[in-house]
Amino acid sequence: MVNMRDVAHRAGVSIATVSFVLNGTKPVTAATRARVEQSMADLGYRRNVVARALASRRTHIIAMAYPALDHKFGFSAAEFFTSAADAARKQDYHLVLWPVGNDGSELTELVGQGLVDGVVLMEVQLDDPRVAVLQKTATPFALIGRTSALEGLSHVDIDFDRTVEDAIGYLHGLGHRQLALISGNLNDPLFSTYGPYVRSEAAYRRVAPEYGLETVVLECSGSSLAGQDAMARLVRDHPDTTAVLIVNEFAALGAVAGLNRLGLRVPDDISVLPLLMAPEMAALTNPALTIMRTPGPELGQLGTEALIRQVEGADPLPPQLVPAKLYPGATTGPPR
Amino acid sequence: MVNMRDVAHRAGVSIATVSFVLNGTKPVTAATRARVEQSMADLGYRRNVVARALASRRTHIIAMAYPALDHKFGFSAAEFFTSAADAARKQDYHLVLWPVGNDGSELTELVGQGLVDGVVLMEVQLDDPRVAVLQKTATPFALIGRTSALEGLSHVDIDFDRTVEDAIGYLHGLGHRQLALISGNLNDPLFSTYGPYVRSEAAYRRVAPEYGLETVVLECSGSSLAGQDAMARLVRDHPDTTAVLIVNEFAALGAVAGLNRLGLRVPDDISVLPLLMAPEMAALTNPALTIMRTPGPELGQLGTEALIRQVEGADPLPPQLVPAKLYPGATTGPPR
Repeated sequence: MVNMRDVAHRAGVSIATVSFVLNGTKPVTAATRARVEQSMADLGYRRNVVARALASRRTHIIAMAYPALDHKFGFSAAEFFTSAADAARKQDYHLVLWPVGNDGSELTELVGQGLVDGVVLMEVQLDDPRVAVLQKTATPFALIGRTSALEGLSHVDIDFDRTVEDAIGYLHGLGHRQLALISGNLNDPLFSTYGPYVRSEAAYRRVAPEYGLETVVLECSGSSLAGQDAMARLVRDHPDTTAVLIVNEFAALGAVAGLNRLGLRVPDDISVLPLLMAPEMAALTNPALTIMRTPGPELGQLGTEALIRQVEGADPLPPQLVPAKLYPGATTGPPR
Repeated sequence: MVNMRDVAHRAGVSIATVSFVLNGTKPVTAATRARVEQSMADLGYRRNVVARALASRRTHIIAMAYPALDHKFGFSAAEFFTSAADAARKQDYHLVLWPVGNDGSELTELVGQGLVDGVVLMEVQLDDPRVAVLQKTATPFALIGRTSALEGLSHVDIDFDRTVEDAIGYLHGLGHRQLALISGNLNDPLFSTYGPYVRSEAAYRRVAPEYGLETVVLECSGSSLAGQDAMARLVRDHPDTTAVLIVNEFAALGAVAGLNRLGLRVPDDISVLPLLMAPEMAALTNPALTIMRTPGPELGQLGTEALIRQVEGADPLPPQLVPAKLYPGATTGPPR
């Protein structure tokens, strides 16, 4: 069993210095820290979790809670996650992903063990049981998303109002007068108070009338097949529609394929504009999608920074809302 | 501060029973365990990591190491991850995702803290530095993938030989006599010894001649744009090709879009068959892809079970290779 003495010997430092590095009890130069850590790696020294926990309440690990078994982990989610992991690494933290359910029960078990310094919550619902779990256990946390009661909660989110305003303004400017919003399936209990669906629809219902437009909202689950099916319903029930806004990125991909299969040309017969999508995904359809680009890279970083400031007792980051921005592609054009 | 006495009182059990539940020192009925855990959740009891670590060397947390900042986290990766998380949950473990690099340095820091009972390695390279890190720290681990030296390592993997045999047999049966393999970019140091590329190509070079077929291999990075570009090179340099096998799932999506843009019809002019892809992704192209379906759900589960058996000192699972199976779509047909 390798001990601190072996590490100190190999690194050419005192045992006390090894202890300072391990427990953060005194500052150590970056070079010395690197030498000690290299020696620990070379020797396979296993930090003693007990000693560490006694010496410091910090693990320098933070978790992103993402309900991956219920919410599909797609390209946008991967962007949030990798940008958060990158931001954490730059501040000498490790970010790990916890695929725990949205109801809070598994989260209780994990945070109860005190293994992380804090949690970033993704896929936030308006009434999110995970918030109470984190408050009860006094775990620092930040939301990427917003509950309905935000008082005192550290959060960043997509600016859905601005995103929908910009999207409608853009399509109106191209000449469209018959739009439809393809939103989520609010009868699915997993998504009935899911922020992006609720807030996008509210913004659409507010903004469309300001342009003198009728509102048409179709519900649609978050899958490619559901997106295809939604287009069939749209063409049957609202044949005058010349442009669709779609919230879910998987449904949006299916929508383009679905319109093609219905014999409709995109964008000549109908324009398609997803409200939240990663550019990588936009390249997958033919033609490539015009999208409102999900600000995943920005929000993953901001959410992580908000959490780390809290963990370290620094001044809180003010809440920030970032709009999705128009990213040009070939699925939007003037109406026929 | 809530303590064990409060938990015991609320659950209507003795303090010793709470301790048994917390530390796993004696068996407790599922009903009692559930009552104690519910009381801990209700009261916001924070398990003491120190007490727990002293009482038991187990955390009941296992990690999946996936180099998400270097290897794109796509649909197939999500399938491996969610199936592993599900398998862990069924055995009363939590699986978390560690987005640590493939070089082993970050993994050293995380396993060194003793926070997990074991690690499942994803995106395995033939010579994978992470294996040495886990061996040195005596951390239980299982590979989803294979290094070149496997002696004594717990592993499961895709059966690339069988997958490529089945894929070539299928295309040959349709009448194709001019195939090409679109493999990875082996000049990229992050992928130069990446198992799926190396093993698929080796299998292709072995099997194609058995059917009397010439071998044509094009290198291609793992992105949609690279897949489009590979099709342009293929059509220019090997115009007689009637069917392509593609290893990377992102490149495969780009290949279909690229062929469409080159004015070629899929499958009338050229058939496209990805060797590893999740069905969800196959639905994204037009026409929908015929694929060899990545056995992510099977391997995520098997890899997790292999690890948990090791953690619990049970008999090891024998190594298992699972082939990708043909999953019908509309991008393959007889040659023109």
